[in-house]
Amino acid sequence: MRRISEPTVRRLSLYLRFLEEHAARGIATISSDELAACGATTAAQVRKDLSLFGSFGKRGLGYAVPELAARLRDILGLERTYGVAVVGAGKVGSALVQYGGFTSRGFLVRWVYDIDPARIGHAWNGVRVSDARDMEVDFHEGGPDIVIVATPGDAAQGVADRLVRLGVKAILNFAPVHLVVPDDVVVKNVNMAIELEALSYALRHG
Amino acid sequence: MRRISEPTVRRLSLYLRFLEEHAARGIATISSDELAACGATTAAQVRKDLSLFGSFGKRGLGYAVPELAARLRDILGLERTYGVAVVGAGKVGSALVQYGGFTSRGFLVRWVYDIDPARIGHAWNGVRVSDARDMEVDFHEGGPDIVIVATPGDAAQGVADRLVRLGVKAILNFAPVHLVVPDDVVVKNVNMAIELEALSYALRHG
Repeated sequence: MRRISEPTVRRLSLYLRFLEEHAARGIATISSDELAACGATTAAQVRKDLSLFGSFGKRGLGYAVPELAARLRDILGLERTYGVAVVGAGKVGSALVQYGGFTSRGFLVRWVYDIDPARIGHAWNGVRVSDARDMEVDFHEGGPDIVIVATPGDAAQGVADRLVRLGVKAILNFAPVHLVVPDDVVVKNVNMAIELEALSYALRHG
Repeated sequence: MRRISEPTVRRLSLYLRFLEEHAARGIATISSDELAACGATTAAQVRKDLSLFGSFGKRGLGYAVPELAARLRDILGLERTYGVAVVGAGKVGSALVQYGGFTSRGFLVRWVYDIDPARIGHAWNGVRVSDARDMEVDFHEGGPDIVIVATPGDAAQGVADRLVRLGVKAILNFAPVHLVVPDDVVVKNVNMAIELEALSYALRHG
C-alpha cells in the first residue's frame, strides 16, 4: 500500500468515528454521502480515500459498516493498544492525562513526568507523576510507544533527544518549538495558537 | 489573492514564528533552506508558498526577515486582536484559558462559560466563569470574534447553534463531534485522539 497523506489519515479517523457511532446504533450500511457529511468532505473524496485500500462499497448499497470500521481500525493501527508517556505535568499535560478520549481508542497513559518537586508524587487518573530524571531507568525494560511532550519550549528539544536515545519512534509535541529528530522518528505538532491563526486567516479573508 | 489551502496556512504560521525568533535576535535575512527546516518542509515548498503573496526574496540574499514577518502577519490576519470566548470550563477549557500562548498572538480570552454551578464564579487569569445562559445577554453589545467550544460532545451542537444565531463566524471545536454550521461559519476541529491516531498510523506503517 502506498503512503497516504496526513489529511487523508485524518479523514479516515473521522470516518471511523462516524462508522462506530452507526455500528453502535445497529446500522448495517452507509453511503459515501453520509460519510462525506461526517468528515466535511465530498462523496467523491470519500470514494477516492477508501479506494486506496481496496473495494469496500457496493454500488447502490453503500459500505458495510462493521467491515469498513474493522478495516479502518487495521489501517490506522488501532487493533492494538499503545503505551503513552506524558512529559511535562503542567496545565496542558494535566488536561491530557485526564482527557477521557484516549483510553477508549487504546492509547493508555502509563507514565507522567515532571521536574517540579511540587508536582512529583501526585496521581492523576491513577498515574503517579514521576521525576523526569527516572525516565531512562523506567523505560529500561520496555517504554512507551508514543510520548506526549508538554514541557515549556526551552526544555522540549532536550527531552526529545533523550526520547530518541531511548528508542521512542513517535512524539506528539505540544511545546511551541520545532523538534529536530532523526528520520525514523515521527513528530506531530499540536499548537493551539496555530489553530487559532487558521481561524484568523479565515476571518481575514472572509 | 486566491484561497490558500489549510496546510499552507499552517506552514505560514510556522514560518512566522521562526521569523519572529530571528527578528528578536537581530537577524536581517533568512534563506528558504532555513525556513524549510522550521516547518519541516523543503526549500522549494517555502519558495512556492511565499510566491503566492508576491516577491519577497532576493536570489542569493534570502528573505528580509522583518518585511516577510509583517507580510505574513497581515496575511494571517494578525495585525489586529481577536476577542475569544471559551464555552465549557472543564479540564480542556481550563487548560486553554490558562495557556499563555494566545494573548501574545492577539487572541484575548474575554469570556468563559459553563453550566455547572460549581465552576461559575471562579476566575482564571482574571476572567470570571459565567453562566452559559447569559451568553445572549453578554454578547448583545458586541461578542467574541472566535469561540472555543470545549463542552462534552452531546452539548456541542446546541452551543454551536446558539453561537451561529449570535453571529459568531469562527469556532475552534474541541468536542469530539462534527458540528453542522452554515457555510459562512468556519469550524476548525481539534481532536487529541485523532492526533494520536496519525502517530499510530505512522507506527503501523513504519
